[in-house]
Amino acid sequence: MGPSMPDAFEQMWADLAPVGRSASTTGYNRSPFGTAERECHAWFVEQCRARGLRVEHDGNGNTVGWWEVSTGSSASAVLTGSHLDSVLDGGAYDGPLGVVSALAAIDLLRERGFEPGRPVGVAVFAEEEGSRFGLACLGSRLAVGATSPEQARELTDRDGVPLEDAMAATGLEPALGRSAWLDRVGCYIELHVEQGRDLVHRDQPVGVASAIWPHGRYRFDFAGEANHAGTTLMEDRHDPMLTCAMTALAANKQAQLAGQRATFGRLEVAPNGTNAVPSRVIAWLDARCESEEQLTALVETIEKQARDRAVRDGTQLTVTAESVSPAVVFDRDLAQRLASGGFETGAARLPQPPMKPIIPTAAGHDAGILSAAGVPTAMLFVRNPTGISHSPAEHAETADCLAGVTALADALQDLAS
Amino acid sequence: MGPSMPDAFEQMWADLAPVGRSASTTGYNRSPFGTAERECHAWFVEQCRARGLRVEHDGNGNTVGWWEVSTGSSASAVLTGSHLDSVLDGGAYDGPLGVVSALAAIDLLRERGFEPGRPVGVAVFAEEEGSRFGLACLGSRLAVGATSPEQARELTDRDGVPLEDAMAATGLEPALGRSAWLDRVGCYIELHVEQGRDLVHRDQPVGVASAIWPHGRYRFDFAGEANHAGTTLMEDRHDPMLTCAMTALAANKQAQLAGQRATFGRLEVAPNGTNAVPSRVIAWLDARCESEEQLTALVETIEKQARDRAVRDGTQLTVTAESVSPAVVFDRDLAQRLASGGFETGAARLPQPPMKPIIPTAAGHDAGILSAAGVPTAMLFVRNPTGISHSPAEHAETADCLAGVTALADALQDLAS
Repeated sequence: MGPSMPDAFEQMWADLAPVGRSASTTGYNRSPFGTAERECHAWFVEQCRARGLRVEHDGNGNTVGWWEVSTGSSASAVLTGSHLDSVLDGGAYDGPLGVVSALAAIDLLRERGFEPGRPVGVAVFAEEEGSRFGLACLGSRLAVGATSPEQARELTDRDGVPLEDAMAATGLEPALGRSAWLDRVGCYIELHVEQGRDLVHRDQPVGVASAIWPHGRYRFDFAGEANHAGTTLMEDRHDPMLTCAMTALAANKQAQLAGQRATFGRLEVAPNGTNAVPSRVIAWLDARCESEEQLTALVETIEKQARDRAVRDGTQLTVTAESVSPAVVFDRDLAQRLASGGFETGAARLPQPPMKPIIPTAAGHDAGILSAAGVPTAMLFVRNPTGISHSPAEHAETADCLAGVTALADALQDLAS
Repeated sequence: MGPSMPDAFEQMWADLAPVGRSASTTGYNRSPFGTAERECHAWFVEQCRARGLRVEHDGNGNTVGWWEVSTGSSASAVLTGSHLDSVLDGGAYDGPLGVVSALAAIDLLRERGFEPGRPVGVAVFAEEEGSRFGLACLGSRLAVGATSPEQARELTDRDGVPLEDAMAATGLEPALGRSAWLDRVGCYIELHVEQGRDLVHRDQPVGVASAIWPHGRYRFDFAGEANHAGTTLMEDRHDPMLTCAMTALAANKQAQLAGQRATFGRLEVAPNGTNAVPSRVIAWLDARCESEEQLTALVETIEKQARDRAVRDGTQLTVTAESVSPAVVFDRDLAQRLASGGFETGAARLPQPPMKPIIPTAAGHDAGILSAAGVPTAMLFVRNPTGISHSPAEHAETADCLAGVTALADALQDLAS
């Protein structure tokens, strides 16, 4: 008999706490296929083995730990899980909370003496954040075929390292393409820290996702003419920094007016010298809207303002859509089942828990990719007191995390009975 | 008997052409104490030895090749030279033209059979651009005591490497502090490619500098709050990118209105991820004005607008003056002597050359540091057809370069007689 679920949860959380944490910012740098992320991944494999879960690697960098059934169907498995990579200087919860909660939920189900009637899998998806290769949910996209191996082979990181080389450098044997394990998955449930304060406002520790907003990433290449910062008359310049600066302000303004989201959070300047007018500035726009029509309109407005300014600055602009994800509406029946804690189907513990709120999100997740690929999918969110995420300040109280584990265990018990 | 001066000039130019040149941009990356710059430096030492110049290294990374006198005074030497480091992705001429022209001028003087009455030195100063350690003219500042060894020891490059470690890594033995060779220098003449089109407008291949504008570099630290680019409401953000963007536009606008120069050409964003609102943006302002009063007023106006915007964005701003150089007015008599080709003193060749134009510049140079330290100093500029500098497009026609060598040789002959 191992430790009780709360102790096991806290121990797993403590295991991961130091891995890839910056001493200066306390933020996490768990770049896909980098040292810290691989350490987290090795830890996950160990945890699976300690629980007797069968570990399955696919050729896309994803791993699933299977709680197989002794009797019953080996198909229509219930998949849960999340990811272990982080954004640059990110928080502890985005990703790992879903993985640790999935393992803890299995512990809880075993404490309850539950025997699944169908397999339960815990998935860890690769490069969910898109922080290294620029394409978010890369592992799940490859797994379902939303991104082709040919497209993925074109991806390189900031140092020009291709995806397959990065995988091979860590000892993986890349075999990009649709994952075999997908065929046995009947539904997918992902638990995630909330990225916002909806649950705070509702005074609820756990909620259920209704939908993910459409989301696009666009690279804006502003090209000008390098020159001496001292001797070049202001009127003789073709300074791409100015076009970029106006575009960043325009994106913020337009998103505010439209009630949507637009962010320039990443920039590369060349040559990036104090005494040189830049020759080139590359900036990435992250835009998310309630509907695809609104997303298209918002990006068009921002691009038009950028082009108008480029004419004034004598600079050139090229805009490339690096990824555009349509809206995801999660399975309504599944969301209802999760919101009621399985009570409606009679599978849940008594007494009846309160109905969980069902809320939309503007954050992308592997759950969105699986849902778009036709897998019935749902998400659980755990309250985040500040709403801050993608930041060292990202947080969730342990009590809320444990409520999340319980909700996930209830859902798995309901679905895998 | 070696090759004639024009052939020697072209050979030296061809020697340096490939060193540190980017195949993609054709620009130069000769970072101080980096591989390419050290290769240039080793080449310079070889050239000095081939000409029988005595090579003297100081502990600041500067090197002087001395044409010593057989008879006459060994004091009141005439120093010329420039630097071999480049900005990031810079041009071929800024720095190397002054060094190559100095060596070629010695060749020309020897062809003329000239025997100097006082020593002639060719100096190569370290880190003139400030591209690695952020402080322009670092070598000459240390040589004259304008920067103390203690201040210099605090400097680090973008990877956190301290100056002395960078020097030691190339095999140098750093001994920072005032240079012994300075004591024997009677005057300094630096030849440089023009950074502007004044000589083009005047239809002259060579000009003489009257003064250098005051120049400051200021680090703007914009601090905000990292957050998720998708889920964080626009009105809940504290996005330092916005404050920085407005400041870059304000700097450009204010410099235009004032007829001065202000540039944000270097930026660092943290964490610099597409899907994260940045926690911090650092941007460097390069500002240059006709007078120190105008420089102070311009920077104050830009900083005030930045602070006003920071209040609106909920961000914090810290401004640090990394270096502020006062105006330099070069020695008027020396400038006159150079402009007349030494004719007024009777030392120049006949027939009398046309008077060279005397023009100010907004670019900083080691000449400005030596002048401020009390060394009578002058500069020669060589025409630059496009006016572009700090860029791969920087250029000077060979005929103009050779006119520059002749003008420099005339000046050395006049001053070292």
